[in-house]
Amino acid sequence: MIIRQRENWFKMLFVWKGSVLPAILPRLGLLLLISVGVVFVQGRLFEYKIPLNPAAFTLLGVALAIFLGFRNNASYERFWEGRKLWGALLIDTRSLTRQALTMTGLPADSPEVLSFVRLLIAFTYALKHQLRRTDPSEDFQRLLSPELVHQLAKARFKPILLLREMGTWVQTGKEAGRIDSITQAAIDHNLNQLSNIVGGCERIASTPIPYTYNVLLHRTVYLYCFLLPFGLVDSIGWMTPLMVVFVGYTFMALESIVTEIEEPFGTEPNDLALNAISQTIEASLLEMAGQEVPKALKPKKKFILD
Amino acid sequence: MIIRQRENWFKMLFVWKGSVLPAILPRLGLLLLISVGVVFVQGRLFEYKIPLNPAAFTLLGVALAIFLGFRNNASYERFWEGRKLWGALLIDTRSLTRQALTMTGLPADSPEVLSFVRLLIAFTYALKHQLRRTDPSEDFQRLLSPELVHQLAKARFKPILLLREMGTWVQTGKEAGRIDSITQAAIDHNLNQLSNIVGGCERIASTPIPYTYNVLLHRTVYLYCFLLPFGLVDSIGWMTPLMVVFVGYTFMALESIVTEIEEPFGTEPNDLALNAISQTIEASLLEMAGQEVPKALKPKKKFILD
Amino acid sequence: MIIRQRENWFKMLFVWKGSVLPAILPRLGLLLLISVGVVFVQGRLFEYKIPLNPAAFTLLGVALAIFLGFRNNASYERFWEGRKLWGALLIDTRSLTRQALTMTGLPADSPEVLSFVRLLIAFTYALKHQLRRTDPSEDFQRLLSPELVHQLAKARFKPILLLREMGTWVQTGKEAGRIDSITQAAIDHNLNQLSNIVGGCERIASTPIPYTYNVLLHRTVYLYCFLLPFGLVDSIGWMTPLMVVFVGYTFMALESIVTEIEEPFGTEPNDLALNAISQTIEASLLEMAGQEVPKALKPKKKFILD
Amino acid sequence: MIIRQRENWFKMLFVWKGSVLPAILPRLGLLLLISVGVVFVQGRLFEYKIPLNPAAFTLLGVALAIFLGFRNNASYERFWEGRKLWGALLIDTRSLTRQALTMTGLPADSPEVLSFVRLLIAFTYALKHQLRRTDPSEDFQRLLSPELVHQLAKARFKPILLLREMGTWVQTGKEAGRIDSITQAAIDHNLNQLSNIVGGCERIASTPIPYTYNVLLHRTVYLYCFLLPFGLVDSIGWMTPLMVVFVGYTFMALESIVTEIEEPFGTEPNDLALNAISQTIEASLLEMAGQEVPKALKPKKKFILD
Amino acid sequence: MIIRQRENWFKMLFVWKGSVLPAILPRLGLLLLISVGVVFVQGRLFEYKIPLNPAAFTLLGVALAIFLGFRNNASYERFWEGRKLWGALLIDTRSLTRQALTMTGLPADSPEVLSFVRLLIAFTYALKHQLRRTDPSEDFQRLLSPELVHQLAKARFKPILLLREMGTWVQTGKEAGRIDSITQAAIDHNLNQLSNIVGGCERIASTPIPYTYNVLLHRTVYLYCFLLPFGLVDSIGWMTPLMVVFVGYTFMALESIVTEIEEPFGTEPNDLALNAISQTIEASLLEMAGQEVPKALKPKKKFILD
Repeated sequence: MIIRQRENWFKMLFVWKGSVLPAILPRLGLLLLISVGVVFVQGRLFEYKIPLNPAAFTLLGVALAIFLGFRNNASYERFWEGRKLWGALLIDTRSLTRQALTMTGLPADSPEVLSFVRLLIAFTYALKHQLRRTDPSEDFQRLLSPELVHQLAKARFKPILLLREMGTWVQTGKEAGRIDSITQAAIDHNLNQLSNIVGGCERIASTPIPYTYNVLLHRTVYLYCFLLPFGLVDSIGWMTPLMVVFVGYTFMALESIVTEIEEPFGTEPNDLALNAISQTIEASLLEMAGQEVPKALKPKKKFILD
Repeated sequence: MIIRQRENWFKMLFVWKGSVLPAILPRLGLLLLISVGVVFVQGRLFEYKIPLNPAAFTLLGVALAIFLGFRNNASYERFWEGRKLWGALLIDTRSLTRQALTMTGLPADSPEVLSFVRLLIAFTYALKHQLRRTDPSEDFQRLLSPELVHQLAKARFKPILLLREMGTWVQTGKEAGRIDSITQAAIDHNLNQLSNIVGGCERIASTPIPYTYNVLLHRTVYLYCFLLPFGLVDSIGWMTPLMVVFVGYTFMALESIVTEIEEPFGTEPNDLALNAISQTIEASLLEMAGQEVPKALKPKKKFILD
Repeated sequence: MIIRQRENWFKMLFVWKGSVLPAILPRLGLLLLISVGVVFVQGRLFEYKIPLNPAAFTLLGVALAIFLGFRNNASYERFWEGRKLWGALLIDTRSLTRQALTMTGLPADSPEVLSFVRLLIAFTYALKHQLRRTDPSEDFQRLLSPELVHQLAKARFKPILLLREMGTWVQTGKEAGRIDSITQAAIDHNLNQLSNIVGGCERIASTPIPYTYNVLLHRTVYLYCFLLPFGLVDSIGWMTPLMVVFVGYTFMALESIVTEIEEPFGTEPNDLALNAISQTIEASLLEMAGQEVPKALKPKKKFILD
Repeated sequence: MIIRQRENWFKMLFVWKGSVLPAILPRLGLLLLISVGVVFVQGRLFEYKIPLNPAAFTLLGVALAIFLGFRNNASYERFWEGRKLWGALLIDTRSLTRQALTMTGLPADSPEVLSFVRLLIAFTYALKHQLRRTDPSEDFQRLLSPELVHQLAKARFKPILLLREMGTWVQTGKEAGRIDSITQAAIDHNLNQLSNIVGGCERIASTPIPYTYNVLLHRTVYLYCFLLPFGLVDSIGWMTPLMVVFVGYTFMALESIVTEIEEPFGTEPNDLALNAISQTIEASLLEMAGQEVPKALKPKKKFILD
Repeated sequence: MIIRQRENWFKMLFVWKGSVLPAILPRLGLLLLISVGVVFVQGRLFEYKIPLNPAAFTLLGVALAIFLGFRNNASYERFWEGRKLWGALLIDTRSLTRQALTMTGLPADSPEVLSFVRLLIAFTYALKHQLRRTDPSEDFQRLLSPELVHQLAKARFKPILLLREMGTWVQTGKEAGRIDSITQAAIDHNLNQLSNIVGGCERIASTPIPYTYNVLLHRTVYLYCFLLPFGLVDSIGWMTPLMVVFVGYTFMALESIVTEIEEPFGTEPNDLALNAISQTIEASLLEMAGQEVPKALKPKKKFILD
């Protein structure tokens, strides 16, 4: 956000909310305990001195850098692709509304145009509910005709059936002689785009990063962290707990963030604001169609999407 | 998957299924044996002390990082591009079904529309069978007319012939006066997309990452791992086997994963779920066409693609 | 810029303007003070010697490289995508002007064409003002009819309503028999592009890089820098302040740059020159339409965009 | 290839064919000789001891990683883009064949359709011969009319003239009343794609990675390798030759691979299989057109592209 | 270039032309002098020993790797995008020529077609001259009518006005009844592509990589290099000058290359061959239009673009 106030560099060090620190605190605590114990026994386990040093850990840096770097980039790309798809949804529903308003030969305030706009809004909510596995019936009831609500209730791929409805709406206009084949093709082009969006979201939701990667990264990070106290204790003594927890924090926090954002359609703090985007789409389409925008859809003062 | 239960960080350390550990265990065992032997003889081979140290291995880190990083990224891109192509298949077959239902002047429940939908489903299975080199005749027999099945049996590029059949189907509609040139062009645009998908899959399947890369990476990893015990034994003594096996595990496991996913159309654990996607396409197209969806196509409770 | 004079390599070391040095100077000063203090007490805090060495900091290099590298790339991509969107705005408004001049059957100097060109210019300024949250009414008043200015004043998504106006303008031409469906579809294609640009800019403006990343990077960088004097003092003595400030400068300056460019639509020194681009668009469209270009829009000698 | 047999990890260490080892063996031999010499004189040159150690070489790691990583990625992208362009050639020639068969109002087995298909096949071979600077006349003679062969013989941009012929073929159909403007535009869209492919291949073939990069990388790698023995001899003694040759092998082999694949249209072992792809295109188009596919075009058992 | 002779690996070490060595030689000389001086005084400045060692420089490696890696990638992307845009220019002007020859109902050798082809060639040169800020009037005079030359002389955005002329040319054909709306739309699609190319080139030319990055990288590299002798002198003695100059060469040479290629439209050795590409476009379009290609446009034996 452009006008988001820059945070003071000092205060930012102690941010609690919006940090993943709370989630990984227990593990860091355990790591701290172990480090303190290792310092206490001077790196000995029973009688045996564990002979480790930092050089051995440096060799593991290559693997760690590749695993963490890859998983971070792949996860962020999934997050950003999800955001792009929902941005495209805003774009395409607006384009379709503009086409319905100016290319179908219908007056801008006719009920037919409004019913098409409602199909677009219902499509948006249907996609949101499918991705979050929540119940869309409430949104459907306020936007669609009872028959259509009934028909959708049994369907598995609800947004796709709404797309078919839009196709039928255009065909009705064509049969009534208001829309010719060329305009139909232009609208159909944008319906194809909506189909792309549904398919793109389904792809992200249904195909995670291969699980094997996660296991491999996870094991490497944790084994590395829990062996590290033995590697540092000889050279940095009682500073070992501090440095081990510092290193552990960077790795565990990164793993924690990417696990959140690699499934961008969920409801965790760093996931996409699907609710806010859906409401923005509804507000924008209603405004275009000259409708009153319900107050609930107006952005709060600090609302992130405008 | 959004509702996939997050795993406990501790349990995840001991995952067996879905890890590549079983596949590389023999090699790791060998590496362990050698390391133990090296510790036992204190890094001597016969009379000679092997004078290696960690610094020499650090110099190899640059090459290792480039080889592993490159191969990992290139392989994952192949995997993800394969997934995108199959996602596009779902998208485009749905778009074509919508066009057949709403733009061809045919009633939605006419047998002509259904026969077109069946061509699309058969196309999906034909592509799957071509990529996996399996026999498509069973799927063809339940979906296509006997003459077409017979004609396809002799063909080398089966999905392409099915695309031609779709083109002919549209042309028949045009000759019957139901479809005009504009609608034909709009449908043809989506047939071009299907052609893109076939070509894209064939490209991935027929052009692996140049084999020379694999040889170079493979040699570097294994030579590095089997020399490493001599480099560590002087500084970390009897911890050498643990650290060597740890380092070896990270490198060998990564090589093992990327070898699986760089050929994404196979049937190994981390390959794409082409069966599940094909069934989803069939279910979705039948639902759009108002057909009964066979029970076998309904997703199991833990089915990954929805 | 091609003719930008290359700077002498020596002078470039002492550049002040256009560097982020001023912004981070206080922090670097603090870091310098602490370093000098650490050297003075020889790395002791009260009675205790802080036992740190460079090796411990090398282990943190992996995390630092990933965090800084990722944030830098992601921010620059946002910056460059924002620039691409505004470049596309220049491209598409020119294409629409060309279409209005040569495909609508209107003479090139007719008031209708000029009013369309003004809609395009107003659209450009509307987007700029929305992204910077400034008041567009002055620009609207010099470009649009009073009724339209009034209508836009209440609207939340102003550029979108201007797009609808353009659609209506085309439809008017169609109803007057000057434009057929095909030309309408060709113009509509470019209106879709404008819709893409609005949506793309909104996406960048409303969805920052997840805040958690920034916190994680910020903490790692600062904790690293402020611990570093203790790690270096034993080996490089009174050179510690120099090296610590040098390292701190590279990290803090990078963090400072990326924080500027990741919100590319702002008004900080490294943000995009939206004013200059808007004026270039206005000048280019007026020139195409054969209009006199106001002197204020002509580039100054060192104007960056030509 | 999916069914490509996975190689045993142990055997793969000793692969000879398909490795770049033969090409760089002389240089590695020279490096071995020098290393042995350095060990023999204990790092002395005449009377002077060369005082180098591994730490100095670690500092060069950053530059080496950037140079090698960049050149490798840029070269592989060129290789893969070349492959994508030839994949697109397969896709677009198939799409054009489908259009000729089903949208031009000609019976599928008419000589006009076949002559168009032959233009497409000739286009494929013309592009291959242009990229490899070989003589296309033999392929032209078996596919095209004598006049066209004669006309092409003098031309510099042969594939482009064949594209113009295809445009003329379509125009002839339009003048005969079999093709309307819309179908012409749909075919023209695919002809544009073929134009893209020619231009894309010419771009890769005519603009190598700036030569200065290669010189810089080359010098850095070789100077590094030939200085390395002096840096290692003090710490690892008679193991120096082994480690130096190992490090040298990784760098020189990588440079050797990328030099091959950055010009993907050549005829070196790792270049693209343009012959095989051309034959696949010919076979696929003939099959679509219902023609007998010559036996020579059928894939051998281990043929890579299917 | 495919047939470019591979250079012998040994000779390539001593390449002078096409290397950036000459440009940075003075700086490297200065660095050499300083290093020799540091060795001479054994790292002392007046009475004080400068206590630096390689470990402190290793910590700077992270920042250096990020700065150099980023700037190199971003610059090369600009270079390659510029090349892609000029490749697209070749592609689109050819496509438009094909359309003018086969879709406008004009005989291939009519003066109208030739005048359109000349507009395309003039457009190419106009873009080249705009990007290099050179005078296009000579090229305009041999290609365009005197009135148009006069009209363009006063214009600021010359290629854009030529695009408008092309639009007018098509409209003239439509008014004469030779071109229908559909063909007009197909040609208009390619005119949009030309508009994209102009806008893309202007974007690269007018928006450099933020200057702050360059300052930051420049300072880091030079401070690093000039401090390095003090860090190495204790451990490698009189080899210090060699290693310092080697390290300095890699960093300074890279900075020098990227500064050249990040402005790809200039006339430095590694910039794009805009003259050669423009001449290739002219030759290719004239050949397509059946015109005699002037001898000056024929490629010399070693001409890079074919």
